[in-house]
Amino acid sequence: MAGYVYDFSAGNKDMKDLLGGKGANLAEMTNLGLPVPPGFTITTEACRSYLASGDVPPELRVEVTMAVRRLEDALGRRLGDFHEPLLVSVRSGAKFSMPGMMDTVLNIGLNDASVQGLAQYSDDERFAWDSYRRLIQMFGKTVLGIDGDLFADALDKAKAARGVTSDVDLSASDLQTLVAQFKAIVLDVSGREFPQHPREQLDLAIVSVFESWNTDRAKMYRRRERIPNDLGTAVNVMSMVFGNLGATSGTGVCFTRDPSTGVAGVYGDYLSNAQGEDVVAGIRNTLTLADFEELDPAAYADLTLAMRRLETHYRDLCDIEFTVERGKLWMLQTRVGKRTAAAAFRIATQLVDEHLITMDEALERVTGAQLSKLMFPQFDFRSEKVLLANGMAASPGAAVGAAVFDSVTAQKWKAEGKDVILVRRETNPDDLGGMIASVGVLTSRGGKTSHAAVVARGMGTTCVVGADDIVVNAVERVFTAGGHMVAEGDTIAIDGSTGEVFLGDVAVVPSPVAHYLEHGLEAAIDAAGDDSEIIDLVEAVDRILTHADSVRRLHVHANADTAEDARRARSLNAQGIGLCRTEHMFLGDRRVMIERVILAVEPAEKQAAFDALLPLQRADFTELLEVMDGLPTTIRLIDPPLHEFLPDHTDLAVKVALAQARGEADEHDLALLAAVQRMREANPMLGLRGVRLGLVIPGLFALQIRAVAEAVAARLLAGGDPHAEIMVPLVASVMELHLVRDQALEIIREVGEEAGVTLHIPVGTMIELPRACLTADRIAEAAEFFSFGTNDLTQTTWGFSRDDVEGAFFDEYTSLGVLAVSPFESVDTRGVGRLIRIAVEEGRKVRPELMIGVCGEHGGDPESIHFFHEAGLDYVSCSPFRVPIARLEAGRAQVAAPGLGSGDSR
Amino acid sequence: MAGYVYDFSAGNKDMKDLLGGKGANLAEMTNLGLPVPPGFTITTEACRSYLASGDVPPELRVEVTMAVRRLEDALGRRLGDFHEPLLVSVRSGAKFSMPGMMDTVLNIGLNDASVQGLAQYSDDERFAWDSYRRLIQMFGKTVLGIDGDLFADALDKAKAARGVTSDVDLSASDLQTLVAQFKAIVLDVSGREFPQHPREQLDLAIVSVFESWNTDRAKMYRRRERIPNDLGTAVNVMSMVFGNLGATSGTGVCFTRDPSTGVAGVYGDYLSNAQGEDVVAGIRNTLTLADFEELDPAAYADLTLAMRRLETHYRDLCDIEFTVERGKLWMLQTRVGKRTAAAAFRIATQLVDEHLITMDEALERVTGAQLSKLMFPQFDFRSEKVLLANGMAASPGAAVGAAVFDSVTAQKWKAEGKDVILVRRETNPDDLGGMIASVGVLTSRGGKTSHAAVVARGMGTTCVVGADDIVVNAVERVFTAGGHMVAEGDTIAIDGSTGEVFLGDVAVVPSPVAHYLEHGLEAAIDAAGDDSEIIDLVEAVDRILTHADSVRRLHVHANADTAEDARRARSLNAQGIGLCRTEHMFLGDRRVMIERVILAVEPAEKQAAFDALLPLQRADFTELLEVMDGLPTTIRLIDPPLHEFLPDHTDLAVKVALAQARGEADEHDLALLAAVQRMREANPMLGLRGVRLGLVIPGLFALQIRAVAEAVAARLLAGGDPHAEIMVPLVASVMELHLVRDQALEIIREVGEEAGVTLHIPVGTMIELPRACLTADRIAEAAEFFSFGTNDLTQTTWGFSRDDVEGAFFDEYTSLGVLAVSPFESVDTRGVGRLIRIAVEEGRKVRPELMIGVCGEHGGDPESIHFFHEAGLDYVSCSPFRVPIARLEAGRAQVAAPGLGSGDSR
Repeated sequence: MAGYVYDFSAGNKDMKDLLGGKGANLAEMTNLGLPVPPGFTITTEACRSYLASGDVPPELRVEVTMAVRRLEDALGRRLGDFHEPLLVSVRSGAKFSMPGMMDTVLNIGLNDASVQGLAQYSDDERFAWDSYRRLIQMFGKTVLGIDGDLFADALDKAKAARGVTSDVDLSASDLQTLVAQFKAIVLDVSGREFPQHPREQLDLAIVSVFESWNTDRAKMYRRRERIPNDLGTAVNVMSMVFGNLGATSGTGVCFTRDPSTGVAGVYGDYLSNAQGEDVVAGIRNTLTLADFEELDPAAYADLTLAMRRLETHYRDLCDIEFTVERGKLWMLQTRVGKRTAAAAFRIATQLVDEHLITMDEALERVTGAQLSKLMFPQFDFRSEKVLLANGMAASPGAAVGAAVFDSVTAQKWKAEGKDVILVRRETNPDDLGGMIASVGVLTSRGGKTSHAAVVARGMGTTCVVGADDIVVNAVERVFTAGGHMVAEGDTIAIDGSTGEVFLGDVAVVPSPVAHYLEHGLEAAIDAAGDDSEIIDLVEAVDRILTHADSVRRLHVHANADTAEDARRARSLNAQGIGLCRTEHMFLGDRRVMIERVILAVEPAEKQAAFDALLPLQRADFTELLEVMDGLPTTIRLIDPPLHEFLPDHTDLAVKVALAQARGEADEHDLALLAAVQRMREANPMLGLRGVRLGLVIPGLFALQIRAVAEAVAARLLAGGDPHAEIMVPLVASVMELHLVRDQALEIIREVGEEAGVTLHIPVGTMIELPRACLTADRIAEAAEFFSFGTNDLTQTTWGFSRDDVEGAFFDEYTSLGVLAVSPFESVDTRGVGRLIRIAVEEGRKVRPELMIGVCGEHGGDPESIHFFHEAGLDYVSCSPFRVPIARLEAGRAQVAAPGLGSGDSR
Repeated sequence: MAGYVYDFSAGNKDMKDLLGGKGANLAEMTNLGLPVPPGFTITTEACRSYLASGDVPPELRVEVTMAVRRLEDALGRRLGDFHEPLLVSVRSGAKFSMPGMMDTVLNIGLNDASVQGLAQYSDDERFAWDSYRRLIQMFGKTVLGIDGDLFADALDKAKAARGVTSDVDLSASDLQTLVAQFKAIVLDVSGREFPQHPREQLDLAIVSVFESWNTDRAKMYRRRERIPNDLGTAVNVMSMVFGNLGATSGTGVCFTRDPSTGVAGVYGDYLSNAQGEDVVAGIRNTLTLADFEELDPAAYADLTLAMRRLETHYRDLCDIEFTVERGKLWMLQTRVGKRTAAAAFRIATQLVDEHLITMDEALERVTGAQLSKLMFPQFDFRSEKVLLANGMAASPGAAVGAAVFDSVTAQKWKAEGKDVILVRRETNPDDLGGMIASVGVLTSRGGKTSHAAVVARGMGTTCVVGADDIVVNAVERVFTAGGHMVAEGDTIAIDGSTGEVFLGDVAVVPSPVAHYLEHGLEAAIDAAGDDSEIIDLVEAVDRILTHADSVRRLHVHANADTAEDARRARSLNAQGIGLCRTEHMFLGDRRVMIERVILAVEPAEKQAAFDALLPLQRADFTELLEVMDGLPTTIRLIDPPLHEFLPDHTDLAVKVALAQARGEADEHDLALLAAVQRMREANPMLGLRGVRLGLVIPGLFALQIRAVAEAVAARLLAGGDPHAEIMVPLVASVMELHLVRDQALEIIREVGEEAGVTLHIPVGTMIELPRACLTADRIAEAAEFFSFGTNDLTQTTWGFSRDDVEGAFFDEYTSLGVLAVSPFESVDTRGVGRLIRIAVEEGRKVRPELMIGVCGEHGGDPESIHFFHEAGLDYVSCSPFRVPIARLEAGRAQVAAPGLGSGDSR
């Protein structure tokens, strides 16, 4: 059978693409001999064909006819029959489960004739009319698109007329009247009779499932979850069994383990004399499975047998829906169950201990995203909270502190011992000091790759961005949101994992996993006291992370600009520093020194400014190398254009113009304005920065190179084992690199001679421009290592800067389907990735031992890490806080694609 | 012989890489049996080895010894001999001739002993001592690096002491004394005796030639002429012949045709009783070749025979140096002669008529650069001129007009019938009106790809940029330069071919070639009257250009934004419009409409603004299509970010702040400032523009597409043959193109139905981002044509914007050798070119009939055109004024690489 329709017995669990998740699992259970009501699945291909042409393919009609015949023959019952009619349910079932799609239409096959047959078969007239009532209601609402309130109102009226409050108190004849009313509603609203022909009911329900693929909610969900738009859904048609045929019937859901904690055992809910929808609707309180055992030990025994069977077969936590009809167990659905992050780690190691899976498989059962969730403190879910606004979750964690509106106040209050949350419309490099001083950062503008988000993630500071309900008034030092006004000093709380912003204090629960990651297993177990769940969790995380470390080929370095960052990175097992941004060393007090360089008229003045910076830079690097003793430490020469260290042009121009209008022009401001005007660039991202700056301003790179070399010499003389590497940014042509490299080798030689030591400091380059990738073979002649700067590479490959486009059109692009995910979040493999592959291949052709890594945001992104593994990189470098995530994902990438990647484990 | 030394008889003219131009031609003449003094050439490989290691390769010493032996044996004379000594000259000779390199050392082999032998051989003691004196002087200066004035002063003193004014009046004993003085100078300054050993003289001279490869002047020349730095020079050692042995001796230079006009015949100068350097020094007036014929008919006959022989052999104009020693002709050098642009065209067609070359070869003998020189009026070289400054030649031509300092004045004065030259620090899009009104544009800042340069070249307006000696004071309406102050209205003249700026009126000679190109051959011949040289020239240009048109595979389109541009393009034989920039239609009066679009709060207001633009755009396109009837007309949808149509942010902020300080804030200004602030981008080049703008602002592209479709419909109904194509800018992902294309097809269908005509309007895309190239296979699925936007592609591939980098570091980069030429001028084949090749190959794989072209500056650049031909493009599109150049170069590219390029001639 290779058509549009598969009987449940014809498929298996690996056919999810064609049969959807639900259909594939129904087939699998059928083949396992579990009691699944017979039925068939209409393939996703049929759906795609319908969506493309707008018509049901004629072959599908024929195949459905044949499948229904087979079903009728197998059960000895007929759709629409006056005696013992066959009823079926119709459910959607895509490859990935998805809210917003048509859920279920039950009882298809009932009409004015077969309702009699059902009454006879069930020996329960009330049940038959209630089932018919439910069909019309469900069909009317989901298939015909009639407002559900119309049916609910009619039902309420019927109950009121009878003076009862519960559906079950309505009699058969009440329900019969209600059926007539419901049919009238259908005719009124849709202009057509409720279809009496069962096949027409079935066909309409099938088309309705197809069309539900494209509801707005489904589309939005797919976009968010990055599910392709063109998969389509399958349709499952299953013969009905009834949980609402009295006390010996019922329905339930269960899990083979506890999905919230991971504790082994059997978990679930049961509702007697009910259909599936009643459990979800929460009409009555459900029973536990223990209660169910007491109620119906035989059915319970069958169920536990089926659960064991499924878990052993699926080798994972299973989530099951079942129905008991007059004491007989029917399995309606199973799937690998969703679980919390903690449960994921615990279940994975449990299954290893039960010899169901290997450690490699355990590693595949958890994700970096789950580990990330476990690494941050969370708000106590029991606390009362006042929600102010919802923003984007930019950097996880739970932060509580006093709202402040500028960097200076943040630093001052922090010095006074207060926890502060910096609230800004958006942040810029000037806010760095304030961000460092804050426990959290909140902005009303910007996206996940805005300055605030990127810097906060880099520092591991909780951050919510783009909370656009918040109106920040920095001058008045207040913000308003959700009808509240928050003044400076008022306490707020932000959840960097959900994007929520709360008013007032909220209790925070610290993360035992974070404790383990920073201080090791023993310390974490000590800290847990006798909380065995926490001990179990940190042990599980430790086992899996240790396994990831043992298998992964990719090394994991950290991006760290300061000794403090480096210490944190080391404690999180970073194997080196992949990126130390030296421009961060020119901020704060030292900014004035860059100003001196810029304003210098004579070369001597400029040199004097450089000379003043030398000891400061040397001390920075010496401390860094001391912390990173024995590990590679990649120091990038200054990258941003110098005018970034000067005030904003417009602000300064306005200040000067106003001062001049008052006749009080300030000499320094005038000089500064002239400099800013001279150095202003239309597109700073594409301007005088990186290696260009180094070549055009003699002395700048020389200062930094000398500081690195002197720091290495000092560490060597102190008996250390420094492994500094010098990285040249923004190289487009090998000629640029040759010039810097020649200069660097000369300075390193000089410093070595002065200090009487032999210095080996490799010189390599960022690969962050398309041209660098396209000419990697030439660049490799002059570079001892490559480090992909995927942020800049993404910007130039796509021709947009993240500063400008995220807010302006990424939302629009996502909703139009142009982008599934921001290419600044996960590396764009088709464009940027292709350039990376070219550079890796051609660079290694010239220099086989070329060390190749990536630094920047993508280095800590799970999807991107898998790509980098496959592309054959040697290491990824990411924010210290993402190091454990990268370690885990690098291990997972290795397990997923062990043969890929050309390098040895360097 | 495969070593470092080649006897003249061992080489040939095709060995220029190894023997240099001079050596290869000496070998060729030797093999032709012409009377070349025997000698040998040291290869460029020897030079490269010396420059790399700093030492003369030992093998070279051995080979020189053997070559000198062969020379001595052949001539029966010995270096340094007391009787009839052998003397040699040493000359540099690189592959390309190059000023600044060591020229010549004559008379090597003379010393205190052999000077006697020379006296005896020449029977002229004075001659012998004079030759010795010359050797020490030349050797001291060029080999030992001694200040030449020291020798010149001593010579002057000797003449003064004798009371004579000319060298020839010094006696043998005077010269003997001078030799002693010269030797003393050598000892004094260099601290060593003048080397007496002839082999030492020879070796030092050879090394000196090697080292002269790296003089600053030679390096600068190579940079300018894009000659690679690593070629090295050859060294030619030739036995001396003497043109200064009395009246039957002499020396001369000659050409086989007139190199300045191209007129056939024998041209040259002769100086009797002189050595080569005397001709160059201009000590005495030279004779014509006719005088020489009279003086020595036999030598003259030999010379004309040799000239005919050489021209027939080289099949081109030859440039010859010769010497007559006691009535015997010696050929010292020949090469294919340099010539003016006019001569190049005339000589090429003459040689065709003489059956020496084919038309294909004639095409290869001229260049687009030469044609370009002929296309513009020039300043009369006889006029007196006052030079104010030297800038960069940005757009050729000779313009004279009144200096104006702003666009408004330019337009006003132009309306009053005045010729004006717009003088600005730099220009921006606001100056467009003024630039159109001006006969020339002069800026004190910016490079060859600055806004002024690009726009002026596009319009064919004479332009000089970056004349940094000029200080523009736009407020006072004056500029100062070279000590002069020029006020508004003062007449200035600028030469766009040389970059010179003159004060006052300068006479201009119009270009007959331009007349021919715009009005055809007959008109040009009519206009020439009886000036046969001009008639000959325009006929030659016509023949060669016609031939280029007949052979070329590349079509040539023009970039034209207005009907007027289009008319000009058509008159210059453009085969279509490759780029019509529609944003230029939003400038001037219509700018206010874009402002309305931007400031609109309600969608309805925005739509009203679009609706008001529709008839204007439709009229623009209808007129354009009428002019281009029958030819493809590619209309690009709006590309720049909308805020480019608003005032500058800083200017407006200052204006508003000052107004507010006075308490007079203007509502409109405030609204405008808010809009500017909202839309401001850190990097507009990488911001909300092109297709992004079209997708984010509904209605904008729709307006333009509808205007195009309605214009096509109108032309069809009027009986025309419109071929409009819609081009989508800045596509990075095929998804973007799909969305615009779907919208466009819908609008086109609608308009067709409304008008009752069938519209076929292809929709294609610019390929101007790396990602577009890397995903060209996907983009080709939705694009009916590709047009490379090599400006943007260069910017993103290199990661620099031309607005920002040209002034900031291109000069520095050129002098550092990072860039040989701006990648905005000639396409960077290694980076950008590789992306282009990828896109062509992969796009055609998906859609074999895909039409592919290039629009933008590179489309008119000769080198780039050859690349585009080889990459298989179908057409290039360039400024109307560059169309003839592109036609010529496309023909040349075809002749140079006839097998390349995959497309047929579409």
